Amino acid sequence: MRKNYLLTPGPTPLPPQVCESMARPIIHHRTPQFQAILKEATEGLKYVFQTENPVFILASSGTGAMEAAVANLLSPGDTAITVQGGKFGERWTELCKAYGVNAEIIDVEWGKAVDPLEIKKRLSANPKIKAVFTTLCETSTGVTNDIEAIGKIIKETEAVLVVDAISGLGAIDIKSDAWYCDMVISGSQKGLMLPPGMGFISVSPKAFKLVDTAKTPRYYFDLRKAKKAIEKTDTPFTPAVTLIIALNEALEMIRQDGLEQVFLRHKKMASAARAAMKGLGLALFAPDAASDVVTAVKVPEGLDGEKLVKTMRDTYGVTIAGGQDEMKGKLFRIAHMGYIEEFDIIAGISCLEKVLAQMGYKFDLGAGVKAAEEVFLK
Amino acid sequence: MRKNYLLTPGPTPLPPQVCESMARPIIHHRTPQFQAILKEATEGLKYVFQTENPVFILASSGTGAMEAAVANLLSPGDTAITVQGGKFGERWTELCKAYGVNAEIIDVEWGKAVDPLEIKKRLSANPKIKAVFTTLCETSTGVTNDIEAIGKIIKETEAVLVVDAISGLGAIDIKSDAWYCDMVISGSQKGLMLPPGMGFISVSPKAFKLVDTAKTPRYYFDLRKAKKAIEKTDTPFTPAVTLIIALNEALEMIRQDGLEQVFLRHKKMASAARAAMKGLGLALFAPDAASDVVTAVKVPEGLDGEKLVKTMRDTYGVTIAGGQDEMKGKLFRIAHMGYIEEFDIIAGISCLEKVLAQMGYKFDLGAGVKAAEEVFLK
Repeated sequence: MRKNYLLTPGPTPLPPQVCESMARPIIHHRTPQFQAILKEATEGLKYVFQTENPVFILASSGTGAMEAAVANLLSPGDTAITVQGGKFGERWTELCKAYGVNAEIIDVEWGKAVDPLEIKKRLSANPKIKAVFTTLCETSTGVTNDIEAIGKIIKETEAVLVVDAISGLGAIDIKSDAWYCDMVISGSQKGLMLPPGMGFISVSPKAFKLVDTAKTPRYYFDLRKAKKAIEKTDTPFTPAVTLIIALNEALEMIRQDGLEQVFLRHKKMASAARAAMKGLGLALFAPDAASDVVTAVKVPEGLDGEKLVKTMRDTYGVTIAGGQDEMKGKLFRIAHMGYIEEFDIIAGISCLEKVLAQMGYKFDLGAGVKAAEEVFLK
Repeated sequence: MRKNYLLTPGPTPLPPQVCESMARPIIHHRTPQFQAILKEATEGLKYVFQTENPVFILASSGTGAMEAAVANLLSPGDTAITVQGGKFGERWTELCKAYGVNAEIIDVEWGKAVDPLEIKKRLSANPKIKAVFTTLCETSTGVTNDIEAIGKIIKETEAVLVVDAISGLGAIDIKSDAWYCDMVISGSQKGLMLPPGMGFISVSPKAFKLVDTAKTPRYYFDLRKAKKAIEKTDTPFTPAVTLIIALNEALEMIRQDGLEQVFLRHKKMASAARAAMKGLGLALFAPDAASDVVTAVKVPEGLDGEKLVKTMRDTYGVTIAGGQDEMKGKLFRIAHMGYIEEFDIIAGISCLEKVLAQMGYKFDLGAGVKAAEEVFLK
């Protein structure tokens, strides 16, 4: 009867009302009943995206929505900037390459945020750049980029700004309209507290102009079809009905707390997690740009990082994330995103302490938990 | 407290164990726990697809899997046959056009099955044809095509056979391997008794050769990535975890009954539905090629077909489907696919009788239900 605790940067834990809503009988999607649900969902998403632009719901993972951005904005031979400071920044480059778009890569050291002035410099040097693809929170490193500053630069140009906010949206601030984001992309299984299976994408009028002229082939992710459908409160293809019903439950929770409160809660969880790591003598992977959605921590010299994550999960039921790709075994990541409260953080830190102690790492037992408690008591 | 009854060709009703499984806490997808689930799902799908080929699970609707077929098999400028006898056959043509593939359209009158010899003729006339895209059950008309006969023709050629079995798989027979189908496509919300949100695609070695050489851009639906991932019991992108867990519940139900029994049940439901329509003096839309998954019925002269469907649904809670596109208002469709038993059919027919009577259609009240009962009693 082992109990499981989930502290990963997607999927994140599901609230009971979300779970319950998915157990209901299914309804047909071409009905007034479902139209009312879809309308509520798209309006609720606008609130979370902080936008007046339409937000489309795709039956796909977040990567599908990223592909929708590239395929709808650009034509083969076009040039776009990709900000590449981790695994998900690299995905933008891969997508551009797959679609014959020249990716002008801004290579950012893993663990650092991009310098917005570097984007400005590149845009000035090449006025043909049509789009800038970047990341709100780079899940692989726990870094948050300064989207507000980037937006201010891009609004003065012809280029559009596309932000992968897959992890971040509904957890930390992203003002789509006020920050001049032309497309903001997200997924269901992160700050929105849902299972994976839905991608979201908001589209500004500036971006729609490119959507209408881009020559890249597309069908399932064709935003022209999505736009035509949403005008009739419909979807071009069968939507993920169950997940959209669950989305409305999650959106209602977010609305009841209010976005400001949601962001404050994430800030508190993150501060506690970072304090705990300091209490345990562990070093953050991104001390200068640490996000409030996931805390990436360096595995101490001499310790087996993969074994640490595996033991926490397989022996004690606490699932955190390891490092990805080049960071495999070198870091671990504790997420505090979505339906996470302070005692979940305490549970995760306690398990981390237990396994660190068993692996022979030297520290004062309880020091991590105590440091977190001090933050929570404030 | 109106009760709802669902008799639409997707979504179809969910079994209680499927509903229940989706209410469970979520788990992370990059874990041995999820790998075991994924393995069970892909093995179970092979049983239902009647194939030894890998079956990939996509987080998308069925159309996403159709796009995967076109984008992975063909290059711009290639030629393919599309069998077009309804809305979903037309989708193959649209997909080919979107990807710059020359669609050699076989235009089949709505309500008729394609003549396999027509495919043979076209293939002989143009040996450059690389693929034939067809439909097992054309949901918009209720027609089943003779895939076995088509497969025998295609195996003698260089072309690959791609079958949209979105509605049909898990309801009527489709022997992917024995009938030489190179790709069989399906979706979750039909015979598999799940919510929408997953697409499935099986790929033969003959098809994989084209996948490796096709020049169409692709990323999210790239089957090379999917193949590489499945070899490590993984998915290239975040899978729809909840739906895959639910899939295993549905697959277990199908396995317990056995495919033969499942097909027999669908045959019985369909025979009863057709007998009922005859009993009511209504004409089938596809009398010569009626499928066992959905029964399409002509709206009697002088009756408002859209009002019929709307009244059944909005006044009495019984959802059937109307006609699509050019058949709007001209036919209605009663599905008997998935988790449907005989008394569901009786309920649907009874409601149809009630509304027909209210709309002034002349028939013996109870004649439809009686005709269905006679079939079930046999």
